Amino acid sequence: MGSTLLSDLATEIVIPVCAVVGIVFSLVQWVLVSRVKLSPERTASSSTNKKNGYNDYLIEEEEGINDHNVVAKCAEIQNAISEGATSFLFTEYQYVGVFMVAFAILIFLFLGSVESFSTKSQPCTYNVHEMCKPALATAIFSTISFLLGAVTSVVSGFLGMKIATYANARTTLEARKGVGKAFITAFRSGAVMGFLLAANGLLVLYITINLFKLYYGDDWEGLFEAITGYGLGGSSMALFGRVGGGIYTKAADVGADLVGKVERNIPEDDPRNPAVIADNVGDNVGDIAGMGSDLFGSYAESSCAALVVASISSFGINHEFTAMCYPLLISSVGIIVCLITTLFATDFFEIKAVKEIEPALKKATYYLHYSNDCGNCDSKLDSAAIILHNFQFWCSESCEELLFLCVGVGLWAGLIIGFVTEYYTSNAYSPVQDVADSCRTGAATNVIFGLALGYKSVIIPIFAIAISIFVSFSFAAMYGIAMAALGMLSTIATGLAIDAYGPISDNAGGIAEMAGMSHRIRERTDALDAAGNTTAAIGKGFAIGSAALVSLALFGAFVSRAGISTVDVLTPKVFIGLIVGAMLPYWFSAMTMKSVGSAALKMVEEVRRQFNTIPGLMEGTAKPDYATCVKISTDASIKEMIPPGALVMLTPLIVGTFFGVETLSGVLAGSLVSGVQIAISASNTGGAWDNAKKYIEAGASEHARTLGPKGSEPHKAAVIGDTIGDPLKDTSGPSLNILIKLMAVESLVFAPFFATHGGLLFKIF
Amino acid sequence: MGSTLLSDLATEIVIPVCAVVGIVFSLVQWVLVSRVKLSPERTASSSTNKKNGYNDYLIEEEEGINDHNVVAKCAEIQNAISEGATSFLFTEYQYVGVFMVAFAILIFLFLGSVESFSTKSQPCTYNVHEMCKPALATAIFSTISFLLGAVTSVVSGFLGMKIATYANARTTLEARKGVGKAFITAFRSGAVMGFLLAANGLLVLYITINLFKLYYGDDWEGLFEAITGYGLGGSSMALFGRVGGGIYTKAADVGADLVGKVERNIPEDDPRNPAVIADNVGDNVGDIAGMGSDLFGSYAESSCAALVVASISSFGINHEFTAMCYPLLISSVGIIVCLITTLFATDFFEIKAVKEIEPALKKATYYLHYSNDCGNCDSKLDSAAIILHNFQFWCSESCEELLFLCVGVGLWAGLIIGFVTEYYTSNAYSPVQDVADSCRTGAATNVIFGLALGYKSVIIPIFAIAISIFVSFSFAAMYGIAMAALGMLSTIATGLAIDAYGPISDNAGGIAEMAGMSHRIRERTDALDAAGNTTAAIGKGFAIGSAALVSLALFGAFVSRAGISTVDVLTPKVFIGLIVGAMLPYWFSAMTMKSVGSAALKMVEEVRRQFNTIPGLMEGTAKPDYATCVKISTDASIKEMIPPGALVMLTPLIVGTFFGVETLSGVLAGSLVSGVQIAISASNTGGAWDNAKKYIEAGASEHARTLGPKGSEPHKAAVIGDTIGDPLKDTSGPSLNILIKLMAVESLVFAPFFATHGGLLFKIF
Repeated sequence: MGSTLLSDLATEIVIPVCAVVGIVFSLVQWVLVSRVKLSPERTASSSTNKKNGYNDYLIEEEEGINDHNVVAKCAEIQNAISEGATSFLFTEYQYVGVFMVAFAILIFLFLGSVESFSTKSQPCTYNVHEMCKPALATAIFSTISFLLGAVTSVVSGFLGMKIATYANARTTLEARKGVGKAFITAFRSGAVMGFLLAANGLLVLYITINLFKLYYGDDWEGLFEAITGYGLGGSSMALFGRVGGGIYTKAADVGADLVGKVERNIPEDDPRNPAVIADNVGDNVGDIAGMGSDLFGSYAESSCAALVVASISSFGINHEFTAMCYPLLISSVGIIVCLITTLFATDFFEIKAVKEIEPALKKATYYLHYSNDCGNCDSKLDSAAIILHNFQFWCSESCEELLFLCVGVGLWAGLIIGFVTEYYTSNAYSPVQDVADSCRTGAATNVIFGLALGYKSVIIPIFAIAISIFVSFSFAAMYGIAMAALGMLSTIATGLAIDAYGPISDNAGGIAEMAGMSHRIRERTDALDAAGNTTAAIGKGFAIGSAALVSLALFGAFVSRAGISTVDVLTPKVFIGLIVGAMLPYWFSAMTMKSVGSAALKMVEEVRRQFNTIPGLMEGTAKPDYATCVKISTDASIKEMIPPGALVMLTPLIVGTFFGVETLSGVLAGSLVSGVQIAISASNTGGAWDNAKKYIEAGASEHARTLGPKGSEPHKAAVIGDTIGDPLKDTSGPSLNILIKLMAVESLVFAPFFATHGGLLFKIF
Repeated sequence: MGSTLLSDLATEIVIPVCAVVGIVFSLVQWVLVSRVKLSPERTASSSTNKKNGYNDYLIEEEEGINDHNVVAKCAEIQNAISEGATSFLFTEYQYVGVFMVAFAILIFLFLGSVESFSTKSQPCTYNVHEMCKPALATAIFSTISFLLGAVTSVVSGFLGMKIATYANARTTLEARKGVGKAFITAFRSGAVMGFLLAANGLLVLYITINLFKLYYGDDWEGLFEAITGYGLGGSSMALFGRVGGGIYTKAADVGADLVGKVERNIPEDDPRNPAVIADNVGDNVGDIAGMGSDLFGSYAESSCAALVVASISSFGINHEFTAMCYPLLISSVGIIVCLITTLFATDFFEIKAVKEIEPALKKATYYLHYSNDCGNCDSKLDSAAIILHNFQFWCSESCEELLFLCVGVGLWAGLIIGFVTEYYTSNAYSPVQDVADSCRTGAATNVIFGLALGYKSVIIPIFAIAISIFVSFSFAAMYGIAMAALGMLSTIATGLAIDAYGPISDNAGGIAEMAGMSHRIRERTDALDAAGNTTAAIGKGFAIGSAALVSLALFGAFVSRAGISTVDVLTPKVFIGLIVGAMLPYWFSAMTMKSVGSAALKMVEEVRRQFNTIPGLMEGTAKPDYATCVKISTDASIKEMIPPGALVMLTPLIVGTFFGVETLSGVLAGSLVSGVQIAISASNTGGAWDNAKKYIEAGASEHARTLGPKGSEPHKAAVIGDTIGDPLKDTSGPSLNILIKLMAVESLVFAPFFATHGGLLFKIF
């Protein structure tokens, strides 16, 4: 195997170089975005000569509106959003910081106690004839890598939010020049975030491994056991980010819609709505910062899973550096491939019309998968993809072929899940159109059809996951599964770019509305947003599929580390774990949905109060009190993120300590197989309702027009469905991905403790 | 162990005697119900002297309405409902009959092929040193018992429907004399059904065992392997009954409500609504016939599970008749205990006021559990329960104590599930009140809160199930789990009586409305119905809990019979089964919910058409075309029950044949742990929405009045929730119970075939 691999030296070079290239690329994109100036002076003066440097007139100029005021207004709104988001994240990080320190102490104490804090070397877990570093070292290094992972995750989320709030108003301004310009600004900003996160995560991991190696030397088992803490840190921050941000954004969104759209009949993002700033802040802290932390967590976990499985499986038997770091190599190549596909989306072609947006985004997605996969190369690729494929081929030449197949299987499974998600959530296909049609008979049938659609959309993804598990396991056992997960996530940079692009466009539209800009600008940003919805659905498919595979790989590593040979569901210890584990996603969803509901109720009351007590608010002569609404969302999300967070973080600890590793294995398996289903169905149900509403509003077909227009009875029913879908698709659905992965990685980190001291309850009785 | 058991002779006598006592009791109740005369002549003449034989005036007499016409009208409506129900069931049974014969042939061919249809004796499965009956015998006897189970199930459902349609108008007429009289009529009719089914099921099983024994002699393994077909037959009919009936009733209900209540603003069960007869027919074919088949199936399966586990576990090592038939003995004693508690509800006390109904029903439920359980006897019981307990104690004296503990654990777990269900679905407690309160901000928050409530209500029941599994397994391995399930189901006669009581009262109210009787009668039947809702929720809790335990016991038996030693989730064959199994309940729910939705849409269109095209319909001068609506429900349910039925019936066959027993084990475990959660949450969400609506309508508290009255915005939001809940709580929720049990029992029946010829796909590759 060793002979086909890159030399150790090449690996040492390729990984950091790819990471640095990613970071440089991200900075270049940032410079390009920052060229759009938000200071009124510069824009105003430039608009006097040479039409702002472009060949088209600005919309304001066409319509004779004062350009200066518009830019100033945009800057003001952007500032308010940015301040709200920053202040929320700081509050959140204070709470999360306390937790982080407490949990770090817990890790140290639990892992240190395995060998009673002894500093003596001990026999290795998997090869008792050799001596390994003491358990105390694992405790110390796990704690360090946990903190590193947590900090990297927090930084990722924060940077993402900063970039997004930097880009939103710039996208609005660019939309005056044309939809193509706006698209490039939004997509580039997404790319800044995507590449920064992916490259940064890789670099930190690479440096950490090399530093830890100074102490661990050839003890790869101990090294990667300690490195797992990195995944746990990243993932636990992601949980709080997702849940807190998800509650924030949906409380504001639901609250703003229920009073604004339904009761007061004012448009979305109308500046008269007191919750409008909170709503736009929510997009940034939930959809951007939360998602950034989340995807970083996925990436960190799948890398750690692959590394730790490599170190304990036969694939890592020779313990060569390149073999050990093969997972990082895949991620490195992934960054380069993503870089080239991004250029296709932004620089090699220019978008001129609205209808070109979605193809451009999809092209970016598809090239990625064609090029990353080894099989079926000849027939389906066009020239651009062939270049990429050759690049990739250079790598596959120098890699273990079987492993490469696993990566390919993961990629294809992800793509199938993505397609299915698109089919069930895009209003171009019959499922969403059926849901829209059911609005004819009211909200009840809309909800029944929507729920049924979500349930149905689970079928094919589950088969895809099952097949990829079976195939990749057959090729390379648990390591194969970790590789398949990494295959899905190797496209993380572009995935993140596309995911971030959506909320940025959404925010841009909100700013256009609030700044009182022409409705033509709003139409352009809406078109950007709608195209992003579908590709975001594909991204969610990847996230869920990879979560399932990552959890399984981590679960496998946990079972090896905990020293159990089989996880037999017919033993009562395992079975009770299985059934309780399958219940946890329900418990978690109940908490998060109820939180959104309660927070939204409070928001509704506040918005109603302002409309009723502030004279001139409806007429637009008085300004609403945005700050109170921001505070309601902040307080609610900080308070409400603690119980679900505690549920996920404490379950493995309690089960492992009191019931032991067999029951914990059951819990992991149960929550995995049950959580995946709820996550997929919740996301797709919510997405379908959202797009059914958009389908009726757009009225693009004969059928859609019979249901509309806005304000018709079917449209009202569709709005109800959309509102119900909000917490499903943006709070509980995506958080469930984290739940399954986090419990698995936490169990793995604490496995030495559970194996030694766990199962207290059964020991007592 | 043998010494503490009843002698074989006593067992031979006790079981059939108890069964016959149950049947006689049921007939006596029937005679009592039939005393209420529905022929106008007799009633009219008797009302002229001695006030109809009672001391109270009839409501009609008080209000000076012509009694004769009312009775004739009731008889006419009853006739229409009965005819509709009978005709539907006959149509359903034709289709199901074809399936039954086809499946019987399949069973014979599959099981016969295990030893290539050889007539030679073969070594026993569990003791290869002895010779057992040939596989061909198992094939023949399994087929026979399958057909017997199917026919018994069909007869159970049909009789239940006949009794209910016989009792509904009689309950209406009795309601004129007072709520107490109506209660007794409805409850007695329920008891007729409950005892007939329980006793009949027991008797058929007992006779079958004795007849088969003539051939099998001492080969208990072979005998009980063949008897398992009885459970499969009962359960597969139950599936079609539940799904077909569930679609029928909810299509009619949703369709009638959406046009009648929401659009036309006419009350429920108004005779002007064209779907009103279909709605009332639906109650009888869905809630009565479907549920009757369902509970009979549960009972048959849990008995078979206990019997087959007994024959292969160490508890049956001596193969004494009494030890083997201990499960039947428990059911026999259960019938007697239920009989006495029923007397408490109907004969020992008389209900005079509305507020006494619910306590009476609960008393019947609680006595049952106190008396059936051995522990905690002194402090909590009152004198009536002590008598029962002493009776039960006589039995426990003569039984294996550990097994009795298992039965007790099952009972207690069932009771806890019941209490939790009540807490989450009764509008006396805060969860439903919170849901009602959320209607203030519209249907969207109502749905979000309702879904969250359903998810949350899963937590404690799952812990209760987990604990009962652990405890009963610790006492007596898989046999203990089967016993716990039987413990939950030993109260089946009363459980069925209470379950049937609800739809009978519901129908009685519908008849009162359609016959144009005084609103005071409607109030009385509504009170009966509301009290039944809560106790029915408790019954559902038992059904779900027992389904989980039964499936696990059957699953255990399947694994033993298929000859696999462990079901290790970390082998890919098992894991892919697990994740696909966990998906099946979603697939199944998607099908059934979509079916209800589509059928309801058709119904809505037809009802709208009639209102628009029949002149004088709204004014009450023209009669609607009831028959077309009945036909829509019938056609839809027959057509739509086939795909979900096929999914459940074919999955074990396909998985077992092509993927083998390991993957099938995974599928069973996955569908069990996932299905239980969806079943509980769907039932409770639906129940909560129903009662939140009732809470607002009743306006019994200060808080409720701020939300009402009928027709207010919060009430409209509550009606939407109620409509969404209909398919959840009455179609997909209860069918999922059957799904998990049926797949397990089917796997067990086909286990010899799968063990020999299964896993084709893996054998090829």
